[in-house]
Amino acid sequence: MMTEMDFDRQKEGLSMCVVYLLSEQTKLRQVGGRFLLEKKGKRQASIPMDEVECVIQGKAAEITTPAIYELLARGVCIFYVDGRGRLLGQLGQFASSNLSWERSRIQYDTFRDSQRQVELTREIVRLKMNGQIELLRSYAKSKKDLELAYLADEVRKYRKKVAVTSAIEELRGLEGMASRRYFEAFPIIIDSKLWDWNGRNRRPPEDPVNALLSYGYAFLEREVRLAILGARLDVRMGFLHSNNGRKDSLVYDLMEPFRQLVIDRLVLKAVNRGQFHPEDFSYDDVLGCRLSEKAREGWISYYETYMQRSCSAYQGLAPREWIRSWVRQFADELFRNAASAV
Amino acid sequence: MMTEMDFDRQKEGLSMCVVYLLSEQTKLRQVGGRFLLEKKGKRQASIPMDEVECVIQGKAAEITTPAIYELLARGVCIFYVDGRGRLLGQLGQFASSNLSWERSRIQYDTFRDSQRQVELTREIVRLKMNGQIELLRSYAKSKKDLELAYLADEVRKYRKKVAVTSAIEELRGLEGMASRRYFEAFPIIIDSKLWDWNGRNRRPPEDPVNALLSYGYAFLEREVRLAILGARLDVRMGFLHSNNGRKDSLVYDLMEPFRQLVIDRLVLKAVNRGQFHPEDFSYDDVLGCRLSEKAREGWISYYETYMQRSCSAYQGLAPREWIRSWVRQFADELFRNAASAV
Repeated sequence: MMTEMDFDRQKEGLSMCVVYLLSEQTKLRQVGGRFLLEKKGKRQASIPMDEVECVIQGKAAEITTPAIYELLARGVCIFYVDGRGRLLGQLGQFASSNLSWERSRIQYDTFRDSQRQVELTREIVRLKMNGQIELLRSYAKSKKDLELAYLADEVRKYRKKVAVTSAIEELRGLEGMASRRYFEAFPIIIDSKLWDWNGRNRRPPEDPVNALLSYGYAFLEREVRLAILGARLDVRMGFLHSNNGRKDSLVYDLMEPFRQLVIDRLVLKAVNRGQFHPEDFSYDDVLGCRLSEKAREGWISYYETYMQRSCSAYQGLAPREWIRSWVRQFADELFRNAASAV
Repeated sequence: MMTEMDFDRQKEGLSMCVVYLLSEQTKLRQVGGRFLLEKKGKRQASIPMDEVECVIQGKAAEITTPAIYELLARGVCIFYVDGRGRLLGQLGQFASSNLSWERSRIQYDTFRDSQRQVELTREIVRLKMNGQIELLRSYAKSKKDLELAYLADEVRKYRKKVAVTSAIEELRGLEGMASRRYFEAFPIIIDSKLWDWNGRNRRPPEDPVNALLSYGYAFLEREVRLAILGARLDVRMGFLHSNNGRKDSLVYDLMEPFRQLVIDRLVLKAVNRGQFHPEDFSYDDVLGCRLSEKAREGWISYYETYMQRSCSAYQGLAPREWIRSWVRQFADELFRNAASAV
């Protein structure tokens, strides 16, 4: 049975949780020293306050005012998202409350340094391609498929070029070409009789697998955003996406190394293991292909279990912790280098 | 009769309003194309959506989820405040959504320039003292009081020193000394038989007039914060308050010129005209002196009427518009100078 909360949490001995309020008539209340999660008036979960680390609020759900104030007092972030999981607003954890001007300045100065900008961009693109290669290879091995091995080699060729390229525009171009090759592998990895796939598309996604990827990337965006807030970096300025008009470029930059290894891996596993079926999706001219409410609940439960479970693929960490520790290290390095340069 | 809304708004032909949700059982809902304000289940006001420019949410009130999403979609800021009016959180109008890295960088560079820092600090301190002198003089005149005229002259002496001081610490010191002299005037301006006054105090305020000032400054803080967001300045870095560990120093810097001319003037008028009485306040060991709920409603109505009414003292503008236009000009000048320096 799927619910808003990840009930395996306690069994696994995990202490922090993300509360999702995405279903209709879901309500978060404060009662005594606990948060109560209700659905259609029925209690779904009672959570000790200390264990809530983030709340995802959807349009059809509700957080009572006392609960909002309690979350604010605890510095817990509330993310307001739309039906596709995209962020519309954020309450709590002011950027300004833990991010000093001096830290922003060092980040600015580092990212403005054209040599450092190239180095950082190259590293991020390289890590993304590593992820693509790793995923393609593991499926090539498990499926004994030569075409997948070939596509992995194609991405490797782009990765080689990345190592000797010093122009950011070229790095962006290589990333785009590698991604196209990488996504060519999808009809081989998934059951193409069951699932349509005509390449990666979005705004809106046209088929269920693209819908899952887009939904997953929206979840990843919030993970990375929280990690960036935690590492006291300024979300606004990045290096790779800094010039294409996107807001909060650092979020998009630091998502890159995790797209394939976390979200694509999770989506492909879910699809191949029968976690989702084509009938879990509906189509709409404007919104494209979307998960049904039931499938969305299934996603959340599946996602939370996955994000909180340690795994050898992530250096023995849970994916969520792996992302955070990587972003923390990224920040540490940034400020260590800057400090030594002063 | 006092209510949450400023009902004079429409009479005065004003088109934008601030919605206060500070009383118990107040609720903001979305119905059709309007926002409905209810109190204890009774309709208080129906407001066209376009006319809401900012919402102040208190602990005992409620905004429904559809209303929150509507406000988010409209870029309307919701400020979450505590019982003393102090800001606990802010939703909507992401700093990052309309503040580019480049603009922040120019602001950083300007404020880091030590000569510019002194110039800016001197100007802010000078403007603050101007406000103190103006207020003291106007009361000296209307009350025909020599002591008030003397105190105004004392502040003028400090202002003279400000003009020839180039050390920020000294400027801060002069500001502090002038303020002490200025507040010595209060027992002369207000009816000291009715109102206790032992100098300015806060955290917590010890008497009704200090409670009103603190409450008023919390309102001013939000006014200036909105003005800064509107002028696309980075709230985090200031010049005068930048080194004393306060968060969002620019808000505190840019409040200075308005403290006396807007809030003190408003508070003194209110007290002298019998808008408030000593019994409108309660005392608490921890929270100090506080306005009763009824007095708070009275304040809001009085404050909103005042902030939206044009006045010759503010160059013919309403105080709210005067603050905004001043902050806009401040920003324009900052970026004009920076642009010419590049």
